Amino acid sequence: MRAGPSQEDIRRHNLGTLLRHVHLGGPISRAELTTKMGLNRSTIMALTSDLTAAGLVREELPRETGRAGRPSLVVRPESARVYVFAFDVGPDRLAVARVGLGGVILDRRETARERGPFQLEELAGTLAGFARQMRRKTRDDTVCVGAAAAVSGGVRKADGVVRFGPNLLAEEVPFGEELGRRLGLGLPVSVGNDANLAALAEHSRGVGAAVRDLIYLHGDVGIGGGIIAGGHLLGGHDGYGGEVGHMVVNPGGRACGCGSHGCLEAEVGERALLEAAGRVGPGQHGRDAVRTVVEAADRGDIEAQAALSKVGDWLGLGVANLVNIFNPEMVIFGGMLREIYLGSAAQVRTQLVLHAMAPQRERLRLRTSSLGDAATLAGAAELAFAHVLADPLEVLARANA
Amino acid sequence: MRAGPSQEDIRRHNLGTLLRHVHLGGPISRAELTTKMGLNRSTIMALTSDLTAAGLVREELPRETGRAGRPSLVVRPESARVYVFAFDVGPDRLAVARVGLGGVILDRRETARERGPFQLEELAGTLAGFARQMRRKTRDDTVCVGAAAAVSGGVRKADGVVRFGPNLLAEEVPFGEELGRRLGLGLPVSVGNDANLAALAEHSRGVGAAVRDLIYLHGDVGIGGGIIAGGHLLGGHDGYGGEVGHMVVNPGGRACGCGSHGCLEAEVGERALLEAAGRVGPGQHGRDAVRTVVEAADRGDIEAQAALSKVGDWLGLGVANLVNIFNPEMVIFGGMLREIYLGSAAQVRTQLVLHAMAPQRERLRLRTSSLGDAATLAGAAELAFAHVLADPLEVLARANA
Repeated sequence: MRAGPSQEDIRRHNLGTLLRHVHLGGPISRAELTTKMGLNRSTIMALTSDLTAAGLVREELPRETGRAGRPSLVVRPESARVYVFAFDVGPDRLAVARVGLGGVILDRRETARERGPFQLEELAGTLAGFARQMRRKTRDDTVCVGAAAAVSGGVRKADGVVRFGPNLLAEEVPFGEELGRRLGLGLPVSVGNDANLAALAEHSRGVGAAVRDLIYLHGDVGIGGGIIAGGHLLGGHDGYGGEVGHMVVNPGGRACGCGSHGCLEAEVGERALLEAAGRVGPGQHGRDAVRTVVEAADRGDIEAQAALSKVGDWLGLGVANLVNIFNPEMVIFGGMLREIYLGSAAQVRTQLVLHAMAPQRERLRLRTSSLGDAATLAGAAELAFAHVLADPLEVLARANA
Repeated sequence: MRAGPSQEDIRRHNLGTLLRHVHLGGPISRAELTTKMGLNRSTIMALTSDLTAAGLVREELPRETGRAGRPSLVVRPESARVYVFAFDVGPDRLAVARVGLGGVILDRRETARERGPFQLEELAGTLAGFARQMRRKTRDDTVCVGAAAAVSGGVRKADGVVRFGPNLLAEEVPFGEELGRRLGLGLPVSVGNDANLAALAEHSRGVGAAVRDLIYLHGDVGIGGGIIAGGHLLGGHDGYGGEVGHMVVNPGGRACGCGSHGCLEAEVGERALLEAAGRVGPGQHGRDAVRTVVEAADRGDIEAQAALSKVGDWLGLGVANLVNIFNPEMVIFGGMLREIYLGSAAQVRTQLVLHAMAPQRERLRLRTSSLGDAATLAGAAELAFAHVLADPLEVLARANA
């Protein structure tokens, strides 16, 4: 247990907090900042000056105030100048975006990929190639301050090595290291689990903004989870926290890729739904195939309805377990689970009533992702910006050096 | 998002941190404090003087240093002078302790009780009576700085009202308020779930000290849980977090008191074990009955062994689920689960290998509670001391007023 912060620590914290307001909330007047941060005007002015000098924000007169007197200057993020690279390695697609401070997508590349394991060199080469293309189009005064990737799989906290996932060939993949080398920007590439990062994005600027206790469930080939507990991402001892897809809901049930049986992922994942709906065979996978089942059920197809109902029951049981364990304020369904939840909300709610304790669920809200397919990429961008927000001046000094 | 702390906030934080070192670690030299807290000698001296003047600590020459030169003064908690009342309302017993700063039990009363719901007034009256008896025996210069109770049940964070539990008659029991009134000390009584508080105690001064991610499982009539994630107790939105006993591990399994079926509590709780072992009938309940089964299994009783094995399988599956979800560093078995785990560790470990992902469990440690039956009471004491450690001087000023 250490002593409280030094004056220098507090200045760093205050600069980061001011920048975070601008980054997450957009343009904001100095007057509002004094209220939100609980600091006086001269301190806000000094902090803003530092961030302006560092090229992170700029100050402008507001367009129209409608009030008499001198208007308070508005602080805006330098979105076009300061940016990060965000990467998303999903089972079916690769995506790269150049994201400006404030969360603005400035440029973006995406490509579909065949399912199955990847070759590390090839993958990193493709992603770095996209980034280079985008970088060539930037103006000279822009500065890249970070890079991060969302991967479908487990990421070791200590060193960012990817340990498991549907795309992996090896047991320990130093993906961030390889991508960083190929990017050649002299920047480390942070790596995070896709569902964890999507949870972070929904918590920062999505449907879960201002919600301190939420569970984000992400459906892709499998089921991932990201948990925000008391305002913080639940990482666990080594960084593998949130793997709710491998909670056993049906002992002795369907075989799971992890070697166990009856995992939430095995009973609710894409394959469970498509098999239950009798849709097996070439081309029967991915988001479109899932959407087809949900649409067929909507139109009255009995087989599709039965499949959704079965999958919805297991999904509801899984959610009930998580509600008992976490007492969250909100559960968010994202990725493919968005469609599945919308098609089986009645089953999910019934299972909640049957299996979740009343006090645990009486103030619970069930929601679908508001960032949609952009959630994982947005989460990677937030991860890339994290160290800028932790110490704005140090980062800028390094980037400009 | 607010600005960083003021000078006054930092002083309060530093006083609290110094006191926490003394409270949790025992007597410590000023020299060690400078190292642990990262402050210089004069600041440590000033902080210590403030706490000494407030009567919270005292400074003494060390008994023997074995080194040349002027020895560093040792700071000790004023354990005999500054104390709290800790209450424990379990299904089978009531306990009250007077606990001195530093966690020393100065005095203690305990009584067995019949299982079943209690009358609020009668319960609060009994507990307050014990506290009064102990208070009459204290010296005039002692000061009670807090009171807290551990209850078997769910406690609403907002107001400390008990919402559910095996001992409850009503749906909303203002237990802390009633006990506070009966105590008549002018102090509020904080209330917490027993498993949550036991987790806090094991994390503060038990087998889980210095472990930032742990799951404590508490067995009594039912199964409760307390989860420390990233160093913080997982409370959830309303305070009901950690109810792992109502995670469904066996859909359609044994009926549970909560209305669901196949909950961890229904498959692993005291009744599941005793029924599986053929021990039903009057007097067949409580810790002694459970111990008898475990001892019989140890002696080779086939029926007892089969019962433990069955219960151990479900316990292991539940632990595997929690390990996948949380990736904890440690799982601690407390209360009656201590005996059950010791009697079925092989089953638990086998289920972990079958159902928990390898990266999630490769650094996991399974342990039994080191505080034993004192864990819940110790946790209540920590809860009672919490506000003293948050702001030592304010609390003392109020207590002495």
